[in-house]
Amino acid sequence: MSLKAQDIGEDDLIQRLLGKIPIVPTSLHTGPGDDCAVAPLDEDHWQLLKTDAIVESIHFFPTDEAKRVGWKAIARVVSDFAAMGGRPQWFLVTLGIPQSYSIEKLEQLYAGMGECLQSYGGSLCGGETTSIPAGGALMISIAATGWVKKSQLTLRSTAAQDDVIFVTGHLGGSLAGRHLDVTPRLLEAEWLTSRSFPSAMMDLSDGLARDLPRLAAASNLGYQLDLSSLPLHNGCSAAQALSDGEDYELLFTVNPDRIAQLKQQWSLEFPDTPITRVGTIVRIDESMQLKGGWDHFAAER
Amino acid sequence: MSLKAQDIGEDDLIQRLLGKIPIVPTSLHTGPGDDCAVAPLDEDHWQLLKTDAIVESIHFFPTDEAKRVGWKAIARVVSDFAAMGGRPQWFLVTLGIPQSYSIEKLEQLYAGMGECLQSYGGSLCGGETTSIPAGGALMISIAATGWVKKSQLTLRSTAAQDDVIFVTGHLGGSLAGRHLDVTPRLLEAEWLTSRSFPSAMMDLSDGLARDLPRLAAASNLGYQLDLSSLPLHNGCSAAQALSDGEDYELLFTVNPDRIAQLKQQWSLEFPDTPITRVGTIVRIDESMQLKGGWDHFAAER
Repeated sequence: MSLKAQDIGEDDLIQRLLGKIPIVPTSLHTGPGDDCAVAPLDEDHWQLLKTDAIVESIHFFPTDEAKRVGWKAIARVVSDFAAMGGRPQWFLVTLGIPQSYSIEKLEQLYAGMGECLQSYGGSLCGGETTSIPAGGALMISIAATGWVKKSQLTLRSTAAQDDVIFVTGHLGGSLAGRHLDVTPRLLEAEWLTSRSFPSAMMDLSDGLARDLPRLAAASNLGYQLDLSSLPLHNGCSAAQALSDGEDYELLFTVNPDRIAQLKQQWSLEFPDTPITRVGTIVRIDESMQLKGGWDHFAAER
Repeated sequence: MSLKAQDIGEDDLIQRLLGKIPIVPTSLHTGPGDDCAVAPLDEDHWQLLKTDAIVESIHFFPTDEAKRVGWKAIARVVSDFAAMGGRPQWFLVTLGIPQSYSIEKLEQLYAGMGECLQSYGGSLCGGETTSIPAGGALMISIAATGWVKKSQLTLRSTAAQDDVIFVTGHLGGSLAGRHLDVTPRLLEAEWLTSRSFPSAMMDLSDGLARDLPRLAAASNLGYQLDLSSLPLHNGCSAAQALSDGEDYELLFTVNPDRIAQLKQQWSLEFPDTPITRVGTIVRIDESMQLKGGWDHFAAER
């Protein structure tokens, strides 16, 4: 029998599919594998490009308030622009809609998207709707462009050995109901990157146990995580902080010489949002091996 | 009982949803309603943005060759860039994948997308995969950016009274099997717009009976169509040419003073592809009222 989507993880699937597409041209600064693609824009800026999708019964529940679902759909993408040190600009919304879906819920969905766009400075510029066959679930696919100052572009592949690993905010608990409360760290990322604090950065969408290994691997390095140091949401365990996913906090690395300066300045600028040192970037052969985190395809196994 | 997606047409649905999103900023040249959105790029060019989606059992059959489906997914978007007088650039691919979907078919799908990108000069820069709940159908959502010289940008809203309506190629028959044979008229549109022949233009994706009224309405004008003049694919009726959709030919209007010049030059440049005069742009109160064409939501009623 032939291999099915459920037989391999999302990262493996993406690698296999990318193998079928011709190599991207050299004019692309950064292609698949970071939070956004990075393409030339003008002398001082890169253009950022991102696509993301959420599906009913996978990323949200049919009973969730549609307005909050719409907010989440946009906020996830804003979080990816933040993770590059950039800003969102133009959004395209594509809906795959079951024939029996309520128009009022769709309108509420759009209202939530509109609120999020207004909050973070993006604009809808177009979209597409299509019906889907009976039995299908609502799919919301968001594509967007953004921009970043060349001096502020921050990738996940540029961590250095001995860099200290930080996270913003608190982790864990999305599965227990926090999954619609997406607050992209756009201001915080702008502040961090305009001061060149992060040597590498990404947003935490699939859980620290899945995302930290991605950052380390992209940088050809390993990691040591201090599990006792994780900043947990009230009532959450370290296991939840590692694996629930959908934290939408920033995961970033900082040169050890700049830690004191970072901590002092941060606490003045963002007194209500902690940053927490959770580990260290190390050589690959010294790395821990975290397991867990969220995988759409593995989740039902 | 509340209103469902199936109770209203696609155009009405889009209007209702757009009403829930704040007005687009004035920096956007053209927003929802044309083949692509048009945003500032640099002094001489506009950026084009487009999203489109195809769904198994709606836009293609489960038995269709995956490679050709991949080609179609990209080609539909290239056709929209052509319709603006522009060129495709960066593509983002989002897949909603049933757990049991064959990896080999997905790889073939990507191979077909890659072939189409190579043929028309676009590049993949990123993507997203998500699983969908059991019973769902594969959904392929494509978002892309492109560009157009400011002097060549051609909208669907700029037709003038007495302009002559043309179509490229032949119409009809997509439902009878031609729906995967998408050949975007990129070169032809480039040729037409670089010579400023079209006063307005769009691509024929939902059938002349649906798309011509859209072009006329966008221009605040009406149309008279000569049904006996329609260039039909072999074995197709005028009704098929009007309503099958998925022709991906160019529909454009030309000032009557330039018809002779257009016909002469076109036949030298594209001897194998006809252009056919099919009607005239008239005042709204003189317009025909075409019915039919493809509507995803109305199709199953």
